[in-house]
Amino acid sequence: VTTRFQSAAIIGTGLLGASLGLALKERRLAEVVHGVGRRQSSLDIALERGAIDHGHLDVEAAIQTADLIVICTPAGSVPAMLDLVLKSAKPNAIVTDVTSTKRTICTHAAHTWPTPRRFIGSHPMAGSENFGPEHAVSDLYDGRYVLVESGAGLDDAAHLAVIALWEAVGAIVSDIDPAEHDRLLARTSHVPHIASAAIAMLTHGESDLRPFAGGGFKDITRVAAGRPELWRDICLTNSDSVSKTLDDLMSVLQQFKDAVAQKDTDQLDRLFEDGRQARLDVFDQDAGDAS
Amino acid sequence: VTTRFQSAAIIGTGLLGASLGLALKERRLAEVVHGVGRRQSSLDIALERGAIDHGHLDVEAAIQTADLIVICTPAGSVPAMLDLVLKSAKPNAIVTDVTSTKRTICTHAAHTWPTPRRFIGSHPMAGSENFGPEHAVSDLYDGRYVLVESGAGLDDAAHLAVIALWEAVGAIVSDIDPAEHDRLLARTSHVPHIASAAIAMLTHGESDLRPFAGGGFKDITRVAAGRPELWRDICLTNSDSVSKTLDDLMSVLQQFKDAVAQKDTDQLDRLFEDGRQARLDVFDQDAGDAS
Repeated sequence: VTTRFQSAAIIGTGLLGASLGLALKERRLAEVVHGVGRRQSSLDIALERGAIDHGHLDVEAAIQTADLIVICTPAGSVPAMLDLVLKSAKPNAIVTDVTSTKRTICTHAAHTWPTPRRFIGSHPMAGSENFGPEHAVSDLYDGRYVLVESGAGLDDAAHLAVIALWEAVGAIVSDIDPAEHDRLLARTSHVPHIASAAIAMLTHGESDLRPFAGGGFKDITRVAAGRPELWRDICLTNSDSVSKTLDDLMSVLQQFKDAVAQKDTDQLDRLFEDGRQARLDVFDQDAGDAS
Repeated sequence: VTTRFQSAAIIGTGLLGASLGLALKERRLAEVVHGVGRRQSSLDIALERGAIDHGHLDVEAAIQTADLIVICTPAGSVPAMLDLVLKSAKPNAIVTDVTSTKRTICTHAAHTWPTPRRFIGSHPMAGSENFGPEHAVSDLYDGRYVLVESGAGLDDAAHLAVIALWEAVGAIVSDIDPAEHDRLLARTSHVPHIASAAIAMLTHGESDLRPFAGGGFKDITRVAAGRPELWRDICLTNSDSVSKTLDDLMSVLQQFKDAVAQKDTDQLDRLFEDGRQARLDVFDQDAGDAS
């Protein structure tokens, strides 16, 4: 499997795109990296950081020679971008994306792209509440999980190439069906993010809460500082799982509320113990991590 | 205001108590520190760490000569401890506590202690999901906020001494009425903690979620790894505010759910932007902090 590309195009030079550009350059995985942005000012930062070699405001100009195309725009814009890439890219180009929901996007590709398909969806578990090429780092993907689409109808070589790409920038790849991906991510990411925003909103109308907000509040609400349009798109492209999981969350909160109202000591112990155990189960290897 | 004590007694030598002992010793704020534990094994760790000079399994023996008594047991046990301290301590001893709820405890003291009262409630915004004297550090309170009870009926000298004590171990003191404290802390701490546990529980029944759990999930659920009995006591001693705030949280989550179900882009943008702004409002001075 080749992980060296003559020409790579990164559509969207934000944190994820520009960091991938830096990693491709630093690890010599692409000879030339083209970047596409919506604003020249953002492209200029990516150019200055060395994340891309050439900046483009026009997608078709940027991708026409590319062997690798990585769509790094918000989830809502990816279906239209897939249409454009299918129309303008070289037929043997390998195409992937980096968005946090997969079912809507992979279904769109399955319905519109030829089989076997050379677009393979990806979701790197990287990024933070920071965004923009100014925060890009070449090791963003190092040691992170990247979830790569699996299923019928995919081009085997393209699938292997996408996996090899992420491994080449240091990531640990896990294959997953897009619908199952979205069901699980609603639980581990999308609804937790909504809850983080909702918890931050509990402080509305209060003044000078800084003395009352400790490390717990700070950690819990950290992701609420993220970009609204990113999370709006995630909700819209995974609405079924997000809705269902929000119901599940409200149901657990209602159990806590009932136990508090009834001053049910045993039930409160059980609920907090369940939460503690669930947290330790996910991060058992990090149980001693005090960070 | 004196911040040097001949003899200090710390009732409960867990993380908060043993860290206070270390700070008192290191800063020479107390000549002798007595520690009270429920188990000898825990006292032995506190002794070995140098957090206390003498370990006691019996409260009355430990406090009889103390000028300063700090109750560091879980919230649920503090009222009974206040009764015992009132009965056995020197009449001029200064007494405080470190629990995360204040109204139940301060009301109990107001009803049972003589006026002007020499028990002044405290709540240091310190601690973590770690617990036990093995995690104690002498700088736990350094740069942290400590919320100190204010209101009528308090002994002025004792009030100033408690404030001076926390400032002497490096903390920033903020005075607050106990009921207002509990109302605000339900929003910034108690309900966020419940939500963290509830979010962790969304992973129940799923296996091997590690690849799907990123930094957001890890941060949001960190405090869910805390000690169940501590948080159960917090819920039980602040049940009114916790119940009301849980209703508020579920109401905001329902707004998100409605917007997701209706695919209401503008409303989702507004909600996420509200969450983002609320988070930045609390931590405005830390807005650039990527941690």
